Amino acid sequence: MEQTSTLAGRVQERLDQIFENQTKNLADLGDDVLPLLSHAQAFLNGGKRLRARFASASYACVAGTLDPLLEAVPECVINAAAALELFHAAALIHDDIIDRSDTRRGNPAIHKSFSALHQKNGWRSNSENFGIAAAILIGDLLQSWADEVFSSALSELAPQTASRAREHFNRMRTEVAAGQYLDVLEEQMGAFGLESEELERATRVLVYKSAKYSVEAPLLIGAALAGASADQEDVFREFGLPVGVAFQLRDDVLGVFGDESVTGKPAGDDLREGKRTVLVGLTRQHLPISAKRVFDELLGDAQLTEEQVSMMQRTMRDSGALDSVEKMIDGNVSRAFAALNASGFSASTVAELRTLAERATRRDS
Amino acid sequence: MEQTSTLAGRVQERLDQIFENQTKNLADLGDDVLPLLSHAQAFLNGGKRLRARFASASYACVAGTLDPLLEAVPECVINAAAALELFHAAALIHDDIIDRSDTRRGNPAIHKSFSALHQKNGWRSNSENFGIAAAILIGDLLQSWADEVFSSALSELAPQTASRAREHFNRMRTEVAAGQYLDVLEEQMGAFGLESEELERATRVLVYKSAKYSVEAPLLIGAALAGASADQEDVFREFGLPVGVAFQLRDDVLGVFGDESVTGKPAGDDLREGKRTVLVGLTRQHLPISAKRVFDELLGDAQLTEEQVSMMQRTMRDSGALDSVEKMIDGNVSRAFAALNASGFSASTVAELRTLAERATRRDS
Repeated sequence: MEQTSTLAGRVQERLDQIFENQTKNLADLGDDVLPLLSHAQAFLNGGKRLRARFASASYACVAGTLDPLLEAVPECVINAAAALELFHAAALIHDDIIDRSDTRRGNPAIHKSFSALHQKNGWRSNSENFGIAAAILIGDLLQSWADEVFSSALSELAPQTASRAREHFNRMRTEVAAGQYLDVLEEQMGAFGLESEELERATRVLVYKSAKYSVEAPLLIGAALAGASADQEDVFREFGLPVGVAFQLRDDVLGVFGDESVTGKPAGDDLREGKRTVLVGLTRQHLPISAKRVFDELLGDAQLTEEQVSMMQRTMRDSGALDSVEKMIDGNVSRAFAALNASGFSASTVAELRTLAERATRRDS
Repeated sequence: MEQTSTLAGRVQERLDQIFENQTKNLADLGDDVLPLLSHAQAFLNGGKRLRARFASASYACVAGTLDPLLEAVPECVINAAAALELFHAAALIHDDIIDRSDTRRGNPAIHKSFSALHQKNGWRSNSENFGIAAAILIGDLLQSWADEVFSSALSELAPQTASRAREHFNRMRTEVAAGQYLDVLEEQMGAFGLESEELERATRVLVYKSAKYSVEAPLLIGAALAGASADQEDVFREFGLPVGVAFQLRDDVLGVFGDESVTGKPAGDDLREGKRTVLVGLTRQHLPISAKRVFDELLGDAQLTEEQVSMMQRTMRDSGALDSVEKMIDGNVSRAFAALNASGFSASTVAELRTLAERATRRDS
């Protein structure tokens, strides 16, 4: 774990520097803006740094100069990693407004923290609206800062290298926002569509909102910083997409079966939000009509009791859907490892990528 | 007007190209994402293109190669102008969520359009929340695309020139989001602070949320693209800040006294939102205690009747506050013109900047 903690430490240092600089930049606006900075910084002081690690590992693969402790990755990788973390924080903060999620990583979501600030101060007008306003603006700030540090990551690179890395970063940002819209849309559609379509739609959301965003894109960005060839990029796609798919399938399982004390989110949260995941789609395929009707009525009910959540969990397990998803996870991980084994990258870099893939898909939080 | 319509036409063409490309980029996500693109594009098909014009005019000043028809501005200026327009659209779309504004430029705000889409389709869950979700995501997409086209504006420039232009762009984004937070905060503070502080706070919001953002920053970005010297940048600050202040003071006047058929916003909208503008601060300074109490109770009441709005308008006029603001506008414009006259820029570029300043501060919409 030494190597990743070193990387995580360097990324954290860079993030802290960024907040220090932005605090100076905003000094003329007075102390009233400080809560924006402190809440954003606290939010970024956590998380798995998954994207940073994938980007750094793919860089090391292509650069071929792997220091096993990963201390050797240059500043441009640390800057790109910090950009990924800032962008991700922005996406989560906006996501929590969109999903009306009250908690994140066991703490109040940003919009909730600012609602609480409003209440504590006894301000007038609506505290919920104030929380949403502040969270929208913090997300906007973090997006700008992500872009700022990503640009500085590219400033010393050859124009062609920089331009390729930027293409991947740009595609990532566009696809994740559009994928998030599809996700929201799925939750609104009361009448389920054709079952064949349903799984296809759930898979599309999973690919664009999560698999490409969380794994493939960071890998491609890291690789591009090292000047990857088209063939090398293909390896990262063939490895990254299935790992990303397995990563999100694991997330879907945890969203239903996860232990709140480990995930930081109430068990069954995805059921209350009505998420149309692949796990849900498979469950519904296996249910007889009457049971499906009961299941559909419960799905998306924000007031689900613990008993109702348990009942739905049982249905998902007994229908065989949970097993199917676990098999899909295994299948995707195997496919990813096969791509890696055929890649010709050095044994030590392959080992690092395998470790990361395992951690992303076998986790319990 | 020929020169500006040529510029506006080139910017519009660039924006249309961007939407065409992004539509291709998102093709794999299916037709469900098309409303994101169509609503965003329609939103960008309007507005005064004020920022584009200021950036182009300052570029022409510094480059010193002014073609009086402004057709000569190079592609980098058109790209930067398109970036400013995209970023501004994103800011307005998020702003309308934050302010709970139902209309923009006489049309429904983006979040309202998506709420209507939700209702039309009879989707389940909450149509208001869906509208907000879609509008947050469209704003995020447009921010990314602004950044994308801004980077392409810089790609052919010398590193130092590019880096200076980027600094101005970065500062602009950070300051406007933080300024917007201060603006929201002012509206929440039920008890007015000390009167001396009140005007100071209103002025701070005006400077950061609007004056720098709408006028000074576009001028500095355009100038930086042409490689402006530090002295030349100072001229644009000395000209741009007062023009920006006058621009926003005019906006504040229109927000209370504007004609809905021209502004596209209901008369008195700012009063219903409870905006703490300089105009409001000056009014309160001039009122005796009892009248102030009535005024304060009405300010920020979303249900104000037309009669109540008329009464508040009368109070603002009779107190002398409206006259004071008009005088401040005149004073700022004069100060800006004095800076311009001392600048040493050619007569034709100075004329263009004067025209823009007049238009920004004497407008009725």
